[in-house]
Amino acid sequence: MKDLETFFKPRSVAVVGASRTPGKAGHTVLANILEFGFEGDIYPINPSVDEVQGIKTCPSLSALAKVPELVVAVLPREQTKGLMEECARLGVERVIIPAAGFSDVGDEGRLLEQGVMEVAREAGIRVMGPNSIGTVSTSGAFATSIVTLDRMRQGSLSLFGQTGMFSSGIARWINTVEHFGVSKIACLGNKADIDENDLLDYLGDDPDTRVIGIYTEGVKDGARFASLLRRVSAAKPVLLLKSGQTAMGRRAIASHTGALAGSDGIYSGLMEQTGAIRVADFEEMLDCAKALEMQPVPAGNGVGIVSITGVGCVLSADAAGRFGLDFPSFAPSTAEAVREGLPDWIPVTNPADIWAGIEQKGAEKAYGAGLRAAAEDPSIHSVVAIFTVIPESNMDVAGLFESLREARPDKTYAVVLMAGDAAMYSRWKETLESAGFPTYPSPARCLRALGAMWRFASRQAF
Amino acid sequence: MKDLETFFKPRSVAVVGASRTPGKAGHTVLANILEFGFEGDIYPINPSVDEVQGIKTCPSLSALAKVPELVVAVLPREQTKGLMEECARLGVERVIIPAAGFSDVGDEGRLLEQGVMEVAREAGIRVMGPNSIGTVSTSGAFATSIVTLDRMRQGSLSLFGQTGMFSSGIARWINTVEHFGVSKIACLGNKADIDENDLLDYLGDDPDTRVIGIYTEGVKDGARFASLLRRVSAAKPVLLLKSGQTAMGRRAIASHTGALAGSDGIYSGLMEQTGAIRVADFEEMLDCAKALEMQPVPAGNGVGIVSITGVGCVLSADAAGRFGLDFPSFAPSTAEAVREGLPDWIPVTNPADIWAGIEQKGAEKAYGAGLRAAAEDPSIHSVVAIFTVIPESNMDVAGLFESLREARPDKTYAVVLMAGDAAMYSRWKETLESAGFPTYPSPARCLRALGAMWRFASRQAF
Repeated sequence: MKDLETFFKPRSVAVVGASRTPGKAGHTVLANILEFGFEGDIYPINPSVDEVQGIKTCPSLSALAKVPELVVAVLPREQTKGLMEECARLGVERVIIPAAGFSDVGDEGRLLEQGVMEVAREAGIRVMGPNSIGTVSTSGAFATSIVTLDRMRQGSLSLFGQTGMFSSGIARWINTVEHFGVSKIACLGNKADIDENDLLDYLGDDPDTRVIGIYTEGVKDGARFASLLRRVSAAKPVLLLKSGQTAMGRRAIASHTGALAGSDGIYSGLMEQTGAIRVADFEEMLDCAKALEMQPVPAGNGVGIVSITGVGCVLSADAAGRFGLDFPSFAPSTAEAVREGLPDWIPVTNPADIWAGIEQKGAEKAYGAGLRAAAEDPSIHSVVAIFTVIPESNMDVAGLFESLREARPDKTYAVVLMAGDAAMYSRWKETLESAGFPTYPSPARCLRALGAMWRFASRQAF
Repeated sequence: MKDLETFFKPRSVAVVGASRTPGKAGHTVLANILEFGFEGDIYPINPSVDEVQGIKTCPSLSALAKVPELVVAVLPREQTKGLMEECARLGVERVIIPAAGFSDVGDEGRLLEQGVMEVAREAGIRVMGPNSIGTVSTSGAFATSIVTLDRMRQGSLSLFGQTGMFSSGIARWINTVEHFGVSKIACLGNKADIDENDLLDYLGDDPDTRVIGIYTEGVKDGARFASLLRRVSAAKPVLLLKSGQTAMGRRAIASHTGALAGSDGIYSGLMEQTGAIRVADFEEMLDCAKALEMQPVPAGNGVGIVSITGVGCVLSADAAGRFGLDFPSFAPSTAEAVREGLPDWIPVTNPADIWAGIEQKGAEKAYGAGLRAAAEDPSIHSVVAIFTVIPESNMDVAGLFESLREARPDKTYAVVLMAGDAAMYSRWKETLESAGFPTYPSPARCLRALGAMWRFASRQAF
């Protein structure tokens, strides 16, 4: 535990190669540490200037009065081994290496990496990278990304893997498009030391982490990975994006991180056995993570849907089976209550198309009657509203869902915002998600997330 | 031809049930006609008030001095037959019926519908609906939707089907999120008269329409549909969303429009034989339509990719095979030119990961060298850049792509904007798409669209 904690919550950090020049990685790392409000000691190391971003520099690690707990080595690859030797001499225990050009670029780089790692291993230094974009930790008020970030909201989702996306573009995306927060993010880079198994082990026990997302191109110790997935998935949902599903993909992996992708079938089997949730891309990972972050998992696979449009019902029904979900017929009392929001001549089905009710009685009444009834139905475990974001469906959706949750906190809630006006869409998404109700742009994406939740939940029961 | 033209470009239109009350369908239809700038004669019919939205009303169709070419019958279902009889007496030839509650709600409604349609057939009146949300036509400056719309940009995509989504939420979405325009939109509703075959026949010959998107829950005359798909697909790409892929989906269809969904296998075979492009959802339809609207189709299946991130390369490679695309190795001269934007030690592959080049030489130089070389390579037909929308990759992307298109107008161009900052993302999307370069949020969605273009293009060659 303690081993990796330092990468996320060090008491002190040195940025070797701290720079005054915006755009340089050595500038960005320091700027991110400051932006996140880090409260520990910060040591910018730069032999040529006295001060960087308002902080007094030191010419070298060796010239520091104290040994920092963590070193971020923002140096060209050729200078990395020398720095590692200095770290070894001084007793530094944790180093992040952002530089690329090691085992990610073939034999010459592989030799360089071996040289660096021999020094680290000998000295017992734990290394993240090389080729690591860095870490983020909201509870540690800390970020070492070499890509410019804004301070992130605190949440319970942790993300890590063999990609810089989590510590860069996806972090920015979550911060500006989504309405949930994160706990920890790590880019493993070439995994010369710290790998998926280490992070999974650490986050499995991390009290700040409730949901885990992993991107991997291939793990080295598959047996340990399987046993960790099994252990961690028993308590926390683990979303796994494993690339290399095709021969072309596996060739691309070899030239990206030099990893052996392994047979895709092995990973599929692994998911089945361990209860980890396989996702196809980052979009699916975030879709599932959002629901898991915001809502309780469903107590069964019964879904009740109330939709503004018949095509929403049809596309939902088409998708449900693929994700292991069902639409039980409403109980007679439920159907009766749904009908209160509809003209008499409308037959009530699940999914329920309530367009005629919206036209005749207004959106508040039609959705209210339908959703309240669905939430009370004992065979319905997840309650979904499908809206098209048009003026005709304008209403206090978040207020309605809050009252549903108050009455039936045991149900799982989600909302589909199916096309419509962009500005209204963002406003509705923000209002709903800030209140804890995940939104999706299509029925299939919503049901895919609910299906993943249900698969996770159904294993917890045994 | 002339038959359906009137639904999109009438010389005169009567709105029966025109209303002063915002939110009422009879208010919205008239407001849309005015919003779109319709230049023909507009007759609001309302027996109780003198004027609606600034236009003098008439108490009934019969009281009009002239017979309107098109009637939009915004009336409760019970009054529809009476109106149809009036239309028959007066010699009205085209009627849109928005009201639901006909064959969409079972036997009683089906009888009502038959009554209305007997009158129409007898009089030779062509009917769109019942249960039709209406039509849109940009070249006709005309819209009869019962959902509030803003005037739409003119473009070459036409959409129709058994859903109100196109004439409501999707129209608003295209107008506020996308940067292409539409030609015509129609909601077929219950298809008591005009159906998919009629629209496909009409749009196949419509000079304003270059790309067609269809949503259907099941066509009645399959043989005619197949022959029309074959004829139209030979010249224009037809994107078909056919729901009812699962038994649960087919049951939902029965209660939505009462259609018989038919076996899913029949539709898959139909796509194969006719060259129509099957899409899984509205998202895929718009993704493909956007590329087809903006770019020439590729001359082959070779794709060249230049990416800020290795995971972009790997996910692209994983996806390419699924969509019938390939990443040919760059010619030696191409690789040489790509390398100009990279450090010496980086191996050049396709897809090319240029992160190290961006770090060392800047985004302009790294993307510029890579994309120019890819566009010149004879085995590359589609050129794709993958960006993460972060400050580090900030550059004049649209300018670069414009210069590529100028040098090599024979290539197909697309851009992946893979996560990043929301505001930057919208700005980049707008700048690129306004210049005619489609953008996608993931490599898979980009390659899916390019693959659909290639499948269409490859059939044109034979």
